[in-house]
Amino acid sequence: MGEMHCVVKTAPGKGNIALEKRPIPAVGPRDILVRIHAAAVCGTDVHIEEWNDWAEKRVPAGVIIGHEFAGDVVQVGAEVTNIKIGDIVSAETHIVCHSCDLCRNNEDHVCYNTTTIGVHRDGCFAEYIAFPAENAFLCDPKFSVEVLSMMEPFGAAVHGAMEFPVGAKSVAVVGCGPIGAMAVAVVKKLGAKLVIAVEPNQARAELARTMGADVTIDPIKQDPVATVRGLTGGRGVDVVLEYSGNIPGVKAALSYCKPEAKIAAAGLPSRPIDFDFSEFVYRGLTLKGIAGRLMYKTWEQLSGLLEAGVDISPVITHVMPMSEFAEGLRLMRNGECGKVILKNEWTN
Amino acid sequence: MGEMHCVVKTAPGKGNIALEKRPIPAVGPRDILVRIHAAAVCGTDVHIEEWNDWAEKRVPAGVIIGHEFAGDVVQVGAEVTNIKIGDIVSAETHIVCHSCDLCRNNEDHVCYNTTTIGVHRDGCFAEYIAFPAENAFLCDPKFSVEVLSMMEPFGAAVHGAMEFPVGAKSVAVVGCGPIGAMAVAVVKKLGAKLVIAVEPNQARAELARTMGADVTIDPIKQDPVATVRGLTGGRGVDVVLEYSGNIPGVKAALSYCKPEAKIAAAGLPSRPIDFDFSEFVYRGLTLKGIAGRLMYKTWEQLSGLLEAGVDISPVITHVMPMSEFAEGLRLMRNGECGKVILKNEWTN
Amino acid sequence: MGEMHCVVKTAPGKGNIALEKRPIPAVGPRDILVRIHAAAVCGTDVHIEEWNDWAEKRVPAGVIIGHEFAGDVVQVGAEVTNIKIGDIVSAETHIVCHSCDLCRNNEDHVCYNTTTIGVHRDGCFAEYIAFPAENAFLCDPKFSVEVLSMMEPFGAAVHGAMEFPVGAKSVAVVGCGPIGAMAVAVVKKLGAKLVIAVEPNQARAELARTMGADVTIDPIKQDPVATVRGLTGGRGVDVVLEYSGNIPGVKAALSYCKPEAKIAAAGLPSRPIDFDFSEFVYRGLTLKGIAGRLMYKTWEQLSGLLEAGVDISPVITHVMPMSEFAEGLRLMRNGECGKVILKNEWTN
Amino acid sequence: MGEMHCVVKTAPGKGNIALEKRPIPAVGPRDILVRIHAAAVCGTDVHIEEWNDWAEKRVPAGVIIGHEFAGDVVQVGAEVTNIKIGDIVSAETHIVCHSCDLCRNNEDHVCYNTTTIGVHRDGCFAEYIAFPAENAFLCDPKFSVEVLSMMEPFGAAVHGAMEFPVGAKSVAVVGCGPIGAMAVAVVKKLGAKLVIAVEPNQARAELARTMGADVTIDPIKQDPVATVRGLTGGRGVDVVLEYSGNIPGVKAALSYCKPEAKIAAAGLPSRPIDFDFSEFVYRGLTLKGIAGRLMYKTWEQLSGLLEAGVDISPVITHVMPMSEFAEGLRLMRNGECGKVILKNEWTN
Repeated sequence: MGEMHCVVKTAPGKGNIALEKRPIPAVGPRDILVRIHAAAVCGTDVHIEEWNDWAEKRVPAGVIIGHEFAGDVVQVGAEVTNIKIGDIVSAETHIVCHSCDLCRNNEDHVCYNTTTIGVHRDGCFAEYIAFPAENAFLCDPKFSVEVLSMMEPFGAAVHGAMEFPVGAKSVAVVGCGPIGAMAVAVVKKLGAKLVIAVEPNQARAELARTMGADVTIDPIKQDPVATVRGLTGGRGVDVVLEYSGNIPGVKAALSYCKPEAKIAAAGLPSRPIDFDFSEFVYRGLTLKGIAGRLMYKTWEQLSGLLEAGVDISPVITHVMPMSEFAEGLRLMRNGECGKVILKNEWTN
Repeated sequence: MGEMHCVVKTAPGKGNIALEKRPIPAVGPRDILVRIHAAAVCGTDVHIEEWNDWAEKRVPAGVIIGHEFAGDVVQVGAEVTNIKIGDIVSAETHIVCHSCDLCRNNEDHVCYNTTTIGVHRDGCFAEYIAFPAENAFLCDPKFSVEVLSMMEPFGAAVHGAMEFPVGAKSVAVVGCGPIGAMAVAVVKKLGAKLVIAVEPNQARAELARTMGADVTIDPIKQDPVATVRGLTGGRGVDVVLEYSGNIPGVKAALSYCKPEAKIAAAGLPSRPIDFDFSEFVYRGLTLKGIAGRLMYKTWEQLSGLLEAGVDISPVITHVMPMSEFAEGLRLMRNGECGKVILKNEWTN
Repeated sequence: MGEMHCVVKTAPGKGNIALEKRPIPAVGPRDILVRIHAAAVCGTDVHIEEWNDWAEKRVPAGVIIGHEFAGDVVQVGAEVTNIKIGDIVSAETHIVCHSCDLCRNNEDHVCYNTTTIGVHRDGCFAEYIAFPAENAFLCDPKFSVEVLSMMEPFGAAVHGAMEFPVGAKSVAVVGCGPIGAMAVAVVKKLGAKLVIAVEPNQARAELARTMGADVTIDPIKQDPVATVRGLTGGRGVDVVLEYSGNIPGVKAALSYCKPEAKIAAAGLPSRPIDFDFSEFVYRGLTLKGIAGRLMYKTWEQLSGLLEAGVDISPVITHVMPMSEFAEGLRLMRNGECGKVILKNEWTN
Repeated sequence: MGEMHCVVKTAPGKGNIALEKRPIPAVGPRDILVRIHAAAVCGTDVHIEEWNDWAEKRVPAGVIIGHEFAGDVVQVGAEVTNIKIGDIVSAETHIVCHSCDLCRNNEDHVCYNTTTIGVHRDGCFAEYIAFPAENAFLCDPKFSVEVLSMMEPFGAAVHGAMEFPVGAKSVAVVGCGPIGAMAVAVVKKLGAKLVIAVEPNQARAELARTMGADVTIDPIKQDPVATVRGLTGGRGVDVVLEYSGNIPGVKAALSYCKPEAKIAAAGLPSRPIDFDFSEFVYRGLTLKGIAGRLMYKTWEQLSGLLEAGVDISPVITHVMPMSEFAEGLRLMRNGECGKVILKNEWTN
């Protein structure tokens, strides 16, 4: 079927990311082939570049990286019925086994046998990608491909933001990178009475305000516990959404939430936290780890939120041709950006 | 303590509502005395005037009617600690026993031994009312007393609207009198993706649009089942909020909701419904009766919704002196109004 | 692959059920072929024999009937990984599309595009059956094939019995045919404090007692409302499981449950019920229709219940060779039995 | 009203517990006076004796200690309607304000203004105790007073054990002192398919088996992670109930539970835990702190569990006259016992 440009992890170790040419992938009977319009750079892509422990354990050399994208369907396998040529799609990146206990219990998002697009198998920093049709998410073409390329991280935001009811409640969102900022917009749309964004980076705090935060707190300059308590009549917030993975940030959140508060945590600290378990128990708190996206309930929810008017476009700070992927990775590595979008410059 | 004007059901039977003078009520050790600023007319007041079966079984002759109000606290009992003189308050109208199985199981809103303000005991169409401090709802005085006089029916709207999650979902609100119209504003605030108001009265349909309905359906002129299905891609709505008590309205709703839909019903039909139970079972539907307000969780929620910006003031169509109560009851009886507010003209 | 005996609906209309010989079915890439050890007769099979409206709309002439079974796997398709030759399996009978909104929202048990084994496509009253491997339920061979042939109706019992928490609660089970009787055993195992079986048929009432009912009520000879209230201190039961489809039975249940009670209904009345909707609303009741089995959460649950010691074998009243299917259908039609098991007499 | 014997914390500091005589307490209008039949010794009583930080902050010198008890009502205040003379009662020990945000939101078990019997105010190691009638729990006299004196710790067990569904699931109970052992009996009654007790003390492990544990693990002699995984087909348990407060115990539990497992934690470690937060998030776990008892939902549940047949009497290892309280405290301090019951030897 001809060749395509793609961005490849060429070998183990730091760096080793290069533009290559590969055959356009073949399409199995239950797969679809999508022409990429736009792809978004994720922190995971930076981890693969830097080759941290996580990446070393999972990523085979030679894999095409990238897993956030939108594009149009150009070919469908013989058994595919839910998707047709011409559809605009994005994708759930976890390909699951459907057979393990977790898959059989509506917990396929933590399937023991998950294969991840752009990690274990070829991804989307390319002209084309092939993947199972069941993982496709059919997009409404009224949204831009830049926005649609962020459906997968938007799903991560939605999964956390909808884990606990937030309507008429006070909510702290800790960490306002792209996912936290999208979560701010979601909880605001869902009727939170007070949305407090906790974020030391001033550009990200400004983004959080744009996305609807009522107040932002700089936890370096302000005592977050005293400030949140002051904003909530001494009571503390009802709900915390933790996207920072920052240890002092997590510890402060456990203090400035009210008794019986709910904490949804998606951020991944790099070290263990010295956790005051007794205080947690004594105050009756709830902590929920947020892994991936519920398949496919979260996708139904994010679709409804877009229809309801949630606008995630402000998190995009850079749009560039895919051949400039190195600059995209650099921006992401240095935290100098919101979301960086790579456009397929070859095939569109 | 002197006398006050009040509106009394003077005797059993139709009519028999008159303005009288009574002593200002005495205040027990756990009670508060509130000077009424504004009271709102409810359908229940009309039932007491008309003396239907429901009223005949419950209402003692001589009772002061009215149960929706806001006012300022002028006296507190010796044991009252949560409320102080000068506070602006409204009230939960159900006074419960705290001892029965239901009260002990967080179900005090259906307590076996409920006494209702303005039904079993003296109400608020008066210059003053005394009632237990625990039933007081402390209001934010930034809202008008007209709005604050509607907290109890707003609570009925909120209880129904928050029974099931509506964020990112499609919702039909059936019946857009004042309570249904307030529910429209609530589900819109909570991020519903599509709010369909089903209401034949054109003034009420217009009110529903003002409150945020995306679409209104006139079920007399349009087939509601076909129309709702058309608006939802053939699928049906995810959630129904039923405030009409209209039998064809209920039956249509059971048809135009999707399989596994959730139906919260607060309207009270006057006759049994011939209910297709098999279809209900086969489609996996859920029906929940909405009785009163959760005590006091619903009040916490409605307070948060006001803070979040829900505006219920458009449901007020008439404001008049309390001495014109007969006109207020007439408007309500004829459905020629949204909410009618009676102002205490004597003491303020 | 040779021929097999099977029981076929030979033509539309009443009766027209006959033993035939057919080719052993072919196995697609994701299918498995199972040699039937035991099959169980369901009320649905009687409806197909009698050719009621439901059957007329769904059942193609020539179909092999029967959908409850256990057997061993004799062949697996090329892509099957979760099942291997020699496994003992039963099956979920609903084959779903995985693509519709319901399937994508964890509601595949009410999928718009369901195909049912033994209804729309060939069933299990045969020596062999082929069906998708994903629908297979892997059985623990320590249980008898007679018991294992009842997993699908057991799942219907479990879905209803586990819809609402029953631990430490009082529960009425209305209708104690095989499914209701299995539900009695489930709620007893789950720690209900009082299990009341409502059943006029004396053999079935006796079965309910065997399965663990604390009390049985004959609703013909006893007033069920007064009796249930008497057994619950005047209060009413916390939970109702309705498997009778009997209209007076449903109406009584709505009266003898407590305010805020939960009612899970799986029985299918043949006519609409004149339903006191206002009383339902006023008392804050919840009614949930129970359709099929949650896929595959209910199967995980029923598997755990068997491990926990639930014994459903007492519902079996008859075991006979499959060639005597007509007698099995007759017993079922006349309600002279619990569960009738047909053994494959040809291949085992 | 005469004098009574009582056990008093006579002064701050270690020890300082003595038998004294005091006036029988007066009864306010909403209080009841109870003659103690049996009281149970709690770890909290040992903390008051040892005068740790927790006690120093809360306990006023001169207070009568003890908070677990059963007795008969000998006097009721003028406004008491739910309790009458002669009733056998136990008590919820948290006296709450009913006014704070938490009380108004069905979270009174973590009320900001809680006063605790036997900690902040006079307790039950005495001939008589007076307390608010609303805190009384009416007991079924068919149970022994020894058993009834343990309702408050039984409530702590029930709150944890019923936080998450356990029916048909595998459950690890970590720490089988009296509360953990009672939790074993509860989850067994609620239909858990596998109950694993993790407890190094052999007498307590034996008690856990008596209460219904299917397996016990000695985490000193056996690797708990490998053992639990071995017992669950490699999968891990569905639910963990943590009553040990033991740091290695908590950390092991976070490893041997399955992805998306639920952990209810009631034990209070004396130091922070170095907690692998990333692993917690990545595996989608849920952790819930269990504080006190839901008021009064947990009491309704424990009452139903007793009716359903849960037998907690095996946790009683010692029964002695109240004057031997020092021996009771010694046994408890040394962990040489299950539950120690003190009988009122003076008044019965």
